[in-house]
Amino acid sequence: MSSAGIIIVGNEILSGKVADTNSHYLCKELRALGVDVERVAVIPDVIDTIAAEVRSQSAAFDHVFTSGGVGPTHDDVTLDGVAKAFGVDLVLNEALAARIERAQGSRPNESQLKMAKIPAGAMLVDAGDLWLPVVIVKNVHVFPGIPGLLQKKFESVKERFRGIPFKLRRVYLSRRESEIAEVLNRVLAEFPEVLMGSYPRTGREDFFVMVTLESRDDAYLQRSLDVLLERLPEGSIQRVE
Amino acid sequence: MSSAGIIIVGNEILSGKVADTNSHYLCKELRALGVDVERVAVIPDVIDTIAAEVRSQSAAFDHVFTSGGVGPTHDDVTLDGVAKAFGVDLVLNEALAARIERAQGSRPNESQLKMAKIPAGAMLVDAGDLWLPVVIVKNVHVFPGIPGLLQKKFESVKERFRGIPFKLRRVYLSRRESEIAEVLNRVLAEFPEVLMGSYPRTGREDFFVMVTLESRDDAYLQRSLDVLLERLPEGSIQRVE
Repeated sequence: MSSAGIIIVGNEILSGKVADTNSHYLCKELRALGVDVERVAVIPDVIDTIAAEVRSQSAAFDHVFTSGGVGPTHDDVTLDGVAKAFGVDLVLNEALAARIERAQGSRPNESQLKMAKIPAGAMLVDAGDLWLPVVIVKNVHVFPGIPGLLQKKFESVKERFRGIPFKLRRVYLSRRESEIAEVLNRVLAEFPEVLMGSYPRTGREDFFVMVTLESRDDAYLQRSLDVLLERLPEGSIQRVE
Repeated sequence: MSSAGIIIVGNEILSGKVADTNSHYLCKELRALGVDVERVAVIPDVIDTIAAEVRSQSAAFDHVFTSGGVGPTHDDVTLDGVAKAFGVDLVLNEALAARIERAQGSRPNESQLKMAKIPAGAMLVDAGDLWLPVVIVKNVHVFPGIPGLLQKKFESVKERFRGIPFKLRRVYLSRRESEIAEVLNRVLAEFPEVLMGSYPRTGREDFFVMVTLESRDDAYLQRSLDVLLERLPEGSIQRVE
């Protein structure tokens, strides 16, 4: 099973002006592919902070995904941070500069050329119908912050990450968490390989607790589910998905 | 100006089953209070990982806020992690145990008693009409993951954090970012103390770019706004807020 880390770059997120939706999208997609996201970090547009986080996540996880900070303005410094993390320079990529010129039909200005400067040794992967490719530096995938673009770019590379996906079962209960916690603990002791979650409702849902069981092994998952359903208090089960 | 870090604990977020809304809420609220959020970390329900993140953020920032992992079940280990971060034990707090007993009118079971075990030396602050108080260990505020509860708890302590808040102005433009990037860079060079952001639209909004200017100093902010408006290309300004 491969692991991943996500780095969301953006003062606009930390200052509460914009809500990040990219990390939830990536977590969901990566989970479905069988990749285990182990950390999401939201950090400011500061080169040294980005470099330190990229270096640390790149060493700790199989794959790293960054979002944001790749446009033409003064606060777009993600590629500077990625280059610094690996001790390489940003270099003008002539193919990228040519693409930008073709796309707009005129010579790019200084700000636009900034988007053609990438870390030395970076790999470029075509992203479907987008005119800018995905920039990959070692195990770090650099995505834009705009959700529609990030999703298109992720779609274009995601098959590289496919492993054995998890199967997920959900049990919705009409009891409070504290009334079923001991049953859950006993089932988990018998099925230590199952990933068990227990989530009290967060709003006005019709259940009190959602219990989730996950495993890559279908039969094992089913056995743990059977034992759980048998042990839960009578009448507490609302539905199983 | 004080700084803050946020730690969201929860496998359910990392595996994409649940979207975190607490960090956006806290970022927005803290910004309005004049507190600078410098990092959000989403990490799994693993004691050592929580301990390492708490230790690091507690040393780096004035205030730390955790969300999640404080219920009665096996995967609720945030307080274990906070205790480990500071090298103290979890101890049964008799006053908390008594509150739990009063609230439910019967002796708490083992799982419920788990919620009365807090790091030695923790401070308890009453949280309005909630029956469980806010647990504060050094500069770390431990909040539950359920948004309604987190918000009530934050409301009950937030006045402690109030500083001089930022003023924010927004300019909505009908030009692409690359067409105005150079103007922005020049204004920023003249007003280096202003915090400038530039955000391309993420969906079907009626503008192309939103530019934000922020400062704690009203007059300085207004001067930077006046200069920006004067320098922007004719006809590019849709509205100013």
